[in-house]
Amino acid sequence: MRKRVLSGMRPTGKLHLGNYMGALYNWVRLQHEYECYFFIADWHALTTDYSDVSKLPENTREVALDFLAAGLDPEKCVLFVQSAVKQHAELHLLFSMITPLGWLERVPSYKDQQEQLKEKDLATYGFLGYPLLQSADILIYQPDFVPVGQDQVAHVELTREVARRFNQFYPKRLTAEFNVGVLPAVDIPILPEPKVLLTPSPKLPGTDGRKMSKSYGNTVLLSDPEPIVRQKLKPMVTDPARVRRSDPGNPEVCPVFDLHKVFSSAETQAKAREGCTTAGIGCIECKSWVADAIVAELAPIQERRHHYESNPSVVKEILHAGNLRAMARAEQTMLEVRSAMGLAPAEVGIAQ
Amino acid sequence: MRKRVLSGMRPTGKLHLGNYMGALYNWVRLQHEYECYFFIADWHALTTDYSDVSKLPENTREVALDFLAAGLDPEKCVLFVQSAVKQHAELHLLFSMITPLGWLERVPSYKDQQEQLKEKDLATYGFLGYPLLQSADILIYQPDFVPVGQDQVAHVELTREVARRFNQFYPKRLTAEFNVGVLPAVDIPILPEPKVLLTPSPKLPGTDGRKMSKSYGNTVLLSDPEPIVRQKLKPMVTDPARVRRSDPGNPEVCPVFDLHKVFSSAETQAKAREGCTTAGIGCIECKSWVADAIVAELAPIQERRHHYESNPSVVKEILHAGNLRAMARAEQTMLEVRSAMGLAPAEVGIAQ
Repeated sequence: MRKRVLSGMRPTGKLHLGNYMGALYNWVRLQHEYECYFFIADWHALTTDYSDVSKLPENTREVALDFLAAGLDPEKCVLFVQSAVKQHAELHLLFSMITPLGWLERVPSYKDQQEQLKEKDLATYGFLGYPLLQSADILIYQPDFVPVGQDQVAHVELTREVARRFNQFYPKRLTAEFNVGVLPAVDIPILPEPKVLLTPSPKLPGTDGRKMSKSYGNTVLLSDPEPIVRQKLKPMVTDPARVRRSDPGNPEVCPVFDLHKVFSSAETQAKAREGCTTAGIGCIECKSWVADAIVAELAPIQERRHHYESNPSVVKEILHAGNLRAMARAEQTMLEVRSAMGLAPAEVGIAQ
Repeated sequence: MRKRVLSGMRPTGKLHLGNYMGALYNWVRLQHEYECYFFIADWHALTTDYSDVSKLPENTREVALDFLAAGLDPEKCVLFVQSAVKQHAELHLLFSMITPLGWLERVPSYKDQQEQLKEKDLATYGFLGYPLLQSADILIYQPDFVPVGQDQVAHVELTREVARRFNQFYPKRLTAEFNVGVLPAVDIPILPEPKVLLTPSPKLPGTDGRKMSKSYGNTVLLSDPEPIVRQKLKPMVTDPARVRRSDPGNPEVCPVFDLHKVFSSAETQAKAREGCTTAGIGCIECKSWVADAIVAELAPIQERRHHYESNPSVVKEILHAGNLRAMARAEQTMLEVRSAMGLAPAEVGIAQ
């Protein structure tokens, strides 16, 4: 039996290289080794963008295309849309009953994001509760691991705390009848605590040298055609001390070299380092090499994207099938959860 | 078309006369005039009693029996169990995104109940959100009226505020195509604001003179057999100034007379008043008259209860059918809600 893994991403529109290297690139590798569930977190998009949902359907479509373009294979993993699996909302509601307000108020991103997104009114009940929705997203699949970068470790820790509290209040009791009379009654946790699977999240600067991020407008999209990639990289910020072509540069402080480290071959990296530190090449040439590498990385991605863009009904069918598989797995957990909490089983009037 | 009405009750176990006169008695009358949805709010029971759910299945069964015993007729109204209609949890989650924390912190019952139930830890996310779950319970049926007593008016007011905010963010736009070109595009609210239907909630003292309430241990249950009713009423508190049999009493300060006002005929009331104020009768006799009236009121209720108790599969079928009808109606609202919010329609992968 393969270990199970769950992760999701908010639908922010067409994905960029930062999203790719921080998550998708890892997911594509995980799907060969683990039983994987990957989802588009459209409900989460509402926690910050509730006041204008006009782009949400389009953003969800684009992220689905990028998932498939990046190489997530519906034969190898389950791809689904969060809002299609209502059980996440049900488990979130049940978790709300046992979760102290203080746990949510203390999540570091709660105050941080309210600071950062000052133009939005985030003093809402849903924004406070979004880490708990994440806990439900995760625990409903009873996964062994949650692949995250270092910045998400606190959220997984909350998820583990919620699981512990749930298991303490609502154990599944195996009586002697079930364990063949060998043992006294034993309590089995319904929601095992998942472990963090720390995935590489390399430093990926945008064209202005800051972290690549949609909100900074400094991204290279997975779907950008070659001329756009080259055009975006041409004015990219480099080692600020290298003013003239004849000045030697320092690759360790150059954002372009950070891209080389991620996308270029060892050979090209060595050549670029040598050319930069000896002023043997100019920054324009160095950027054209990293553009070559990125264009080569994107070629198969864009080929797959083109295929799926031309066949929207195939994408719909993939997600529909993925939603059904996710629902079936989530429902399996919820049957145990409802029974342990004394609630009505699905589709039946009243608890036994 | 009949106007629609929605109300619910927490499953606290066997219901008492206070529950009956405050709600069920009115509901039975409403079912002849309105399209009625009545539900057992098992998720709400968890907002205060999450730490011990051992009684929840039994309590839910008892309340279902009392609903039917009181005369709610599954041919005339929809009877269902909240946790069987997952759409309530989904709408609650969506409402959470747009609801300011301050609105929930200001609900009067939030601080009051935390004060009253000091032995329970109610500083949970779910306890703060329970009036919002009520709003979802209500608005998902797009009802015209919510029958409540005076103490619940603040909750309906919150529900109306949530509906207004939802309708402002997510209007249903009817374009010229739909309104035959006569008008420019018009916005239609998806969630009409329901009105309060103030129902009589007579003063109903328990046997110790305080308000009849399970937590005071002063109740007469709908299912109490005649000897128990008489036994419970015999030591009931009366006008404290009437110490001796020969003292005249004051019905206006006597809890037993409050019961007469609710259950006894005008003739018996007059007789009791006369006997009390002239010391013509003793309190024991007066109590036996009110016991007669209560026993008569309970007789048809207990006859129906006996029928359903002997036929548990019939109760299950009634609730199962009610759950399906409620789900269908709730889903009708959710199709509009999801579409307006840019979310995946039910069972389909991705918004159009």
